[in-house]
Amino acid sequence: MFYPQFNQEFRQMLATMEDKKVVVLGHLRPDGDCVGSQIAFCRCLLAMEIEAVCINPDPIPRILRSFLGGTPFYLPHEFSGEGFSAANMDCADKTRIGQGLQARYPEILANIDHHISNPAYGRYNFIDAGSSATAEILAGLFLDCGLPIDEIAAQALYVGIVTDTGQFRFPSTTRQVFEICRLLIERGADPAAAAMELYERESLSKLRLLERFLASLQLVCGGRACIGVIKNGVYQETGADKEDSEGLVDYARSIDGVEIAVLLEERDGAIKGSFRSKDPVHRVDQLARNFNGGGHACAAGFNCRGHLEEFYSNLVEVLQEHFRQAQTSPII
Amino acid sequence: MFYPQFNQEFRQMLATMEDKKVVVLGHLRPDGDCVGSQIAFCRCLLAMEIEAVCINPDPIPRILRSFLGGTPFYLPHEFSGEGFSAANMDCADKTRIGQGLQARYPEILANIDHHISNPAYGRYNFIDAGSSATAEILAGLFLDCGLPIDEIAAQALYVGIVTDTGQFRFPSTTRQVFEICRLLIERGADPAAAAMELYERESLSKLRLLERFLASLQLVCGGRACIGVIKNGVYQETGADKEDSEGLVDYARSIDGVEIAVLLEERDGAIKGSFRSKDPVHRVDQLARNFNGGGHACAAGFNCRGHLEEFYSNLVEVLQEHFRQAQTSPII
Repeated sequence: MFYPQFNQEFRQMLATMEDKKVVVLGHLRPDGDCVGSQIAFCRCLLAMEIEAVCINPDPIPRILRSFLGGTPFYLPHEFSGEGFSAANMDCADKTRIGQGLQARYPEILANIDHHISNPAYGRYNFIDAGSSATAEILAGLFLDCGLPIDEIAAQALYVGIVTDTGQFRFPSTTRQVFEICRLLIERGADPAAAAMELYERESLSKLRLLERFLASLQLVCGGRACIGVIKNGVYQETGADKEDSEGLVDYARSIDGVEIAVLLEERDGAIKGSFRSKDPVHRVDQLARNFNGGGHACAAGFNCRGHLEEFYSNLVEVLQEHFRQAQTSPII
Repeated sequence: MFYPQFNQEFRQMLATMEDKKVVVLGHLRPDGDCVGSQIAFCRCLLAMEIEAVCINPDPIPRILRSFLGGTPFYLPHEFSGEGFSAANMDCADKTRIGQGLQARYPEILANIDHHISNPAYGRYNFIDAGSSATAEILAGLFLDCGLPIDEIAAQALYVGIVTDTGQFRFPSTTRQVFEICRLLIERGADPAAAAMELYERESLSKLRLLERFLASLQLVCGGRACIGVIKNGVYQETGADKEDSEGLVDYARSIDGVEIAVLLEERDGAIKGSFRSKDPVHRVDQLARNFNGGGHACAAGFNCRGHLEEFYSNLVEVLQEHFRQAQTSPII
């Protein structure tokens, strides 16, 4: 049993769904774990002959599209079915399903997530912050309950786990993660094929964006933090998409001695920020709250108004204050 | 049983070693699988009260040193013990243990490897080309035979697997790989700690080198090949080391549509080149032979005299000719 604490309630919830139609919702700017979990949950419902579709407020990123395998995915304006119950995947905060969808589905029947900040806003909640990915929870529950996992669902769940563990690099990568991956491979997941789609279909534009981001890297706070920026116009100059900034901040974090990394994107008078830390002691979710953001202890983000130069020096002060208050010693 | 075909012979070999002293050898320019396997095998022998040391022809790379955990490692000139039997790890070709060591240990008692080209030059040979890493074979045999795997050995074996599978990306990443990793975690391997050492101790100089490499990328042959260069002076300008070019060529390979990637390093009138392909059909070892090089079907290299501009156009012609002759259709 991977999730004995959830088992019975999960079965109960599925029983409730048997006479319903279900929309499987993701979150804004869907990532591999969100889309992977949607695919798998939707296919499980369909296999149980429950009417189900996936809806996302934003389009599925290019590199994830090959994993859909015909699973019904819609943008909000493309789907107008009525009388559907909502199941949220990987969505820490009800508002992250997007404004329009939130108005359409004010009540959430199922809330499956691994974000510590999730306030359990669903009727049924399956939240485990100790899990590496929502896909890990779903896979574990499917396996525990003997529910259908076809090849496409197995690969989608694997994609959720591999992306949300940073390719098995984050501290959430437990032996259970490896056990579940093994069982997903037995059900048709293909690690090399997943990696080819996820990591070997980059665009030259994305690499040009990476080049510009690397050129902007600056160490601050005596090398304990590293900030990189993408200024207005860089997307246009490189031909990269907004979604190509995914993963850039990890380069800043990868530097020896750096404990907190920040990516700042200038977007017409607004700033989008991403925090990453090597150690949860830094609680970057709390740092992000300074700028009306949030997230995990090691990965958080924010959006705020402001101009880059001003914001940058403000941020450096916040980081300095953080290291002073935390009185943590540098990781050696 | 992970390796039923080897089990009995492996026990036999260990029995032979009980009244011997053993040097555990690696290969030139040792990598994670080589060093990880050496650590684990040496510790297993030591735990069995067999005198054992590791010797390498080249120094252990910086990022691998933290995994040694006090296991005795020497360079050839640092160790002069006599009467030792030799056990080779991850060494496809007897000559790759280094000239001096080959003269010192002409007979190899144990030959443990996963390279298809290994001609079984040892008295006991445990060669399985279907395994992702020599460390996978060793871990499987230790587990099969109930041999000691302490925390340091477990982590070392995990490092061998994670590096030789390209972080679980290569086609050799089977369900057995995940099962063995799970069992290694049970014995003390720590994926996040390994990843921290392997991938989160980059230097800013290395990232500056990457920036310069990315800036140089050019698609040729209608986007089927990508060439990046590091010109004379770039190491000095970025402060990067020669070993920091490791992995750069993978960025060129990662581009969608690119089938063959090339890194060219200009080194004072000479050129060092690396080829990578996504598909073994391209036999980049044969391409490298045009320039007195060689290697594997998907990864090869060469060193030759020449000037970059001239060489570059020559290379483009060779690639064009290759795609023409191969008459392979682009990977879609």
